Amino acid sequence: MSEHRNADYGRLIVQGADRPGIVNSVSGVLAEQGANIVSLDQYSSDPSGGRFFQRTVFHLEGLAARIDALRAALDAKLGEELGLDFRLVEAKRRKRAAIFVSKADHCLLDLLWRQRRDEIAMTVSMVVSNHPDLGDQVRQFDIPFFYVPVEKGNKTPAEKEQVNLVKGNVDLVILARYMQILSGDFLEEVGVPVINIHHSFLPAFIGAGPYQRAKERGVKLVGATAHYVTEDLDEGPIIEQDVIRVTHADTVAELQRKGADVERLVLSRAVAWHCEDRVIRDGNSTVVF
Amino acid sequence: MSEHRNADYGRLIVQGADRPGIVNSVSGVLAEQGANIVSLDQYSSDPSGGRFFQRTVFHLEGLAARIDALRAALDAKLGEELGLDFRLVEAKRRKRAAIFVSKADHCLLDLLWRQRRDEIAMTVSMVVSNHPDLGDQVRQFDIPFFYVPVEKGNKTPAEKEQVNLVKGNVDLVILARYMQILSGDFLEEVGVPVINIHHSFLPAFIGAGPYQRAKERGVKLVGATAHYVTEDLDEGPIIEQDVIRVTHADTVAELQRKGADVERLVLSRAVAWHCEDRVIRDGNSTVVF
Amino acid sequence: MSEHRNADYGRLIVQGADRPGIVNSVSGVLAEQGANIVSLDQYSSDPSGGRFFQRTVFHLEGLAARIDALRAALDAKLGEELGLDFRLVEAKRRKRAAIFVSKADHCLLDLLWRQRRDEIAMTVSMVVSNHPDLGDQVRQFDIPFFYVPVEKGNKTPAEKEQVNLVKGNVDLVILARYMQILSGDFLEEVGVPVINIHHSFLPAFIGAGPYQRAKERGVKLVGATAHYVTEDLDEGPIIEQDVIRVTHADTVAELQRKGADVERLVLSRAVAWHCEDRVIRDGNSTVVF
Amino acid sequence: MSEHRNADYGRLIVQGADRPGIVNSVSGVLAEQGANIVSLDQYSSDPSGGRFFQRTVFHLEGLAARIDALRAALDAKLGEELGLDFRLVEAKRRKRAAIFVSKADHCLLDLLWRQRRDEIAMTVSMVVSNHPDLGDQVRQFDIPFFYVPVEKGNKTPAEKEQVNLVKGNVDLVILARYMQILSGDFLEEVGVPVINIHHSFLPAFIGAGPYQRAKERGVKLVGATAHYVTEDLDEGPIIEQDVIRVTHADTVAELQRKGADVERLVLSRAVAWHCEDRVIRDGNSTVVF
Repeated sequence: MSEHRNADYGRLIVQGADRPGIVNSVSGVLAEQGANIVSLDQYSSDPSGGRFFQRTVFHLEGLAARIDALRAALDAKLGEELGLDFRLVEAKRRKRAAIFVSKADHCLLDLLWRQRRDEIAMTVSMVVSNHPDLGDQVRQFDIPFFYVPVEKGNKTPAEKEQVNLVKGNVDLVILARYMQILSGDFLEEVGVPVINIHHSFLPAFIGAGPYQRAKERGVKLVGATAHYVTEDLDEGPIIEQDVIRVTHADTVAELQRKGADVERLVLSRAVAWHCEDRVIRDGNSTVVF
Repeated sequence: MSEHRNADYGRLIVQGADRPGIVNSVSGVLAEQGANIVSLDQYSSDPSGGRFFQRTVFHLEGLAARIDALRAALDAKLGEELGLDFRLVEAKRRKRAAIFVSKADHCLLDLLWRQRRDEIAMTVSMVVSNHPDLGDQVRQFDIPFFYVPVEKGNKTPAEKEQVNLVKGNVDLVILARYMQILSGDFLEEVGVPVINIHHSFLPAFIGAGPYQRAKERGVKLVGATAHYVTEDLDEGPIIEQDVIRVTHADTVAELQRKGADVERLVLSRAVAWHCEDRVIRDGNSTVVF
Repeated sequence: MSEHRNADYGRLIVQGADRPGIVNSVSGVLAEQGANIVSLDQYSSDPSGGRFFQRTVFHLEGLAARIDALRAALDAKLGEELGLDFRLVEAKRRKRAAIFVSKADHCLLDLLWRQRRDEIAMTVSMVVSNHPDLGDQVRQFDIPFFYVPVEKGNKTPAEKEQVNLVKGNVDLVILARYMQILSGDFLEEVGVPVINIHHSFLPAFIGAGPYQRAKERGVKLVGATAHYVTEDLDEGPIIEQDVIRVTHADTVAELQRKGADVERLVLSRAVAWHCEDRVIRDGNSTVVF
Repeated sequence: MSEHRNADYGRLIVQGADRPGIVNSVSGVLAEQGANIVSLDQYSSDPSGGRFFQRTVFHLEGLAARIDALRAALDAKLGEELGLDFRLVEAKRRKRAAIFVSKADHCLLDLLWRQRRDEIAMTVSMVVSNHPDLGDQVRQFDIPFFYVPVEKGNKTPAEKEQVNLVKGNVDLVILARYMQILSGDFLEEVGVPVINIHHSFLPAFIGAGPYQRAKERGVKLVGATAHYVTEDLDEGPIIEQDVIRVTHADTVAELQRKGADVERLVLSRAVAWHCEDRVIRDGNSTVVF
């Protein structure tokens, strides 16, 4: 899943009701405009009456100057004629992200390290936290850190401040073990995708003290799930999941530590894929190309 | 996790309230009786006031003739003096098992085939099913197959017949995708451990149609859990779990097929470990040595 | 990775030197002929001067009657005009396979079970072995078993007989732990792909007694590799690989047993993908869609 | 695998030729001295004539004051009477480590961060590098960084300087992607265990450009192996291994990036286990408790 990020590379994401000839229409417009398809992934949920998804990476000499013409051509063919949704992205534009954290640093640092190594096509514009603890670490990466305390029982003022910070400034909010529940109002106002990570077990242990209860049941695997945040807490479309093996000899603290190792890997993978436009929402599910 | 199964090898499982000196007491009795410890696993849930678990494999020349004396010595020291529970097993004695099935053959065949290869220290004494479909396949392994249909809304007569078949004849009941819920009465009367396998997801999708709902949420892993059956359906102590990776391109049928691959591996591992006395119940959890 | 196998579904595999517009040409021909693309995977090894690979599944009403016209249209456009290779397959045609075995049954039985459950789109036409041992088991599946002993130091007569058995009768030869090395002459004469499975370690232990040597080095993982057979023994293009965790407590026999569990899963996956035309050879590598 | 690190907890590692009664002798001495066994792992390579390994964690009130008496008692019983080797360690004493690096930071940062989180029972005394690049990052953790350039074709002066830095100051040297080969002289003089991490494949691609060659062969897994360094380059006893899945779409650079994710996890696990005295060398193999 490597990816071209240079100038002159673009990504085209198309989705909508499936019907014959979509692939041909898409490739036709690209060919007319002189673009060469570098990779193409396509999926139909059902050949008759299903939903259609396509991600195309293409190369087009002088893309920056020609992207408006390409967009107009796509709009005419895909939008107006075929009634499809599409997104056209220059690969060189990195997603701007705000990372929300509380006190745990494992997911945050993994993201910051990978960004510094250029493993993820994003720019971390800011880190926002309801605790001051991680400020020093964040600023060592030359990234602004904003401390926004959340009043118990009244998170509205804090959310208002958070919206002011991120709105228009970022394309993505990442909850890297941010321990506050965001309201539906926040999600609506902020207007960009929000990715969350949380621990997961087979079976689930819903509610308080999941690690303690997993221990009491003798679970042999602990896991993590990265998903888009919706108003239904922890019920949004899943982007990525993974697990790690544990034994009876692991204490609750050790289960949490191993869980943290999975969380940071799963969140980083989910964010990397999102930033390369590989993840397409399909109702409450996802297509990951 | 290989294991000695010859004559003259024995296994000693000890559990109870932890206190100083248990390991020394156990090894003392074994040494006095001339037994040589081959492997020893020990675990304390907490060094002060916790529960103690120990599994010891030992070699004792002429074990069959000397096992009663050994048991008496252990009883005096561990039972009466230290108030511990213990189990003493000749390794050459295979567990006798009844496998309960319905129509799916994947778990059943994996167990029968591993038994034939001598990978699991068990003898399958019979297969019991509420459907006649798998009879021919079972009998090709020279194993008796009993068809016990279950009346809708009244499973008592069937359970009575099942108890008649297995009681006293087996040391273990394995539910290899047996699609009926066993009553508390059955569990009590049958008086031997019952191991079940069921599909598992992160998070869980409890109730009907779990694969369909997992698909709708976009899960990226499907799994399986083997556990001891208790009166709380699918809530008993977990013996083993595993997962397999899936994608958006997998249909519900394909999720089930991949789930089946995990189920047979997980159930076979759980049964193999149980038959080597590696699994010790600890309340609603397990210690797996 | 589920797959349509009904009448009216077809698969089109295209490969060759990459150049702009191939996707558009392929989808253009399909659209002209009335075919609807169900899924499409495409990969270019390099956008400039690389190799192009595409697998397309399509639906075309009355495919059987119209496939010749479609092939002619593809030949004109893709073959003559663009100089590409292509393969056109009716999805309902199962691959006919010969399975070669020696004495070990684990890979063989896994393939036969999955075929019976319709998990793999193949028909096992025959099983060929240099030992008579597995004959009874094979015939229980109503599949012919041919015993072709191999003379020590002179395998030519046996290979001749094997070629007579399989040539023209099968589309695929599967070496399911067949412990003889096939000559280059056999590979050439038989004229169909040959898939092999062998144990694998990190690092490799080349030569005799690999499990013993892996044990001596303290390896923590044993694995298996399924690959196409070429004249360079065990050096052909890799289709699939997997591993399983082991410990110091595993004996050499146990390492082999765990290795066998991986071998059968990996071989079955590789065969299933091959039979759905998902695996495209790319020099000594593979593209797996 | 959690672990007690407080005062009053100790670890006893015993190894030698197996013979009846060792467990009893060890537990006898511990009981006499008032120590309570918290956990015990034991393994015999062969019940008759094999090698014996035991790791015992115990609690002894006032351990620091009583450890000399305990050592003397163990010496008399285990050393002189039974001819066994043993190591007695206070759990509160962390291993002092020197980390050797070159330019890659992924393994280094993972180790430093886990140390800060107290996940590994070690103190990183210094980081030594043949390149100055990582100095700033290391010093942010308040750890000394020493730049020791290595002259091409003559590494003796550098090794001398390295020995001067680490000898007597550390209990462990960790090669965290240190790209120089250490001489046998260095290993001998430094006199402490040296742990290395390197990439691994199934099969191995020995020599230059392994990722390029793995790509050319179509490997589906890339892995990493942590091992003790011996004079035979990359041939020492294996401590831990793991793999990650890759596809044909991964470029050589992406294979390396995914390989790096495995490397840091595997190295951190190996170091954590070593620092808890869980890894016992057994010739060119290891026992990991």
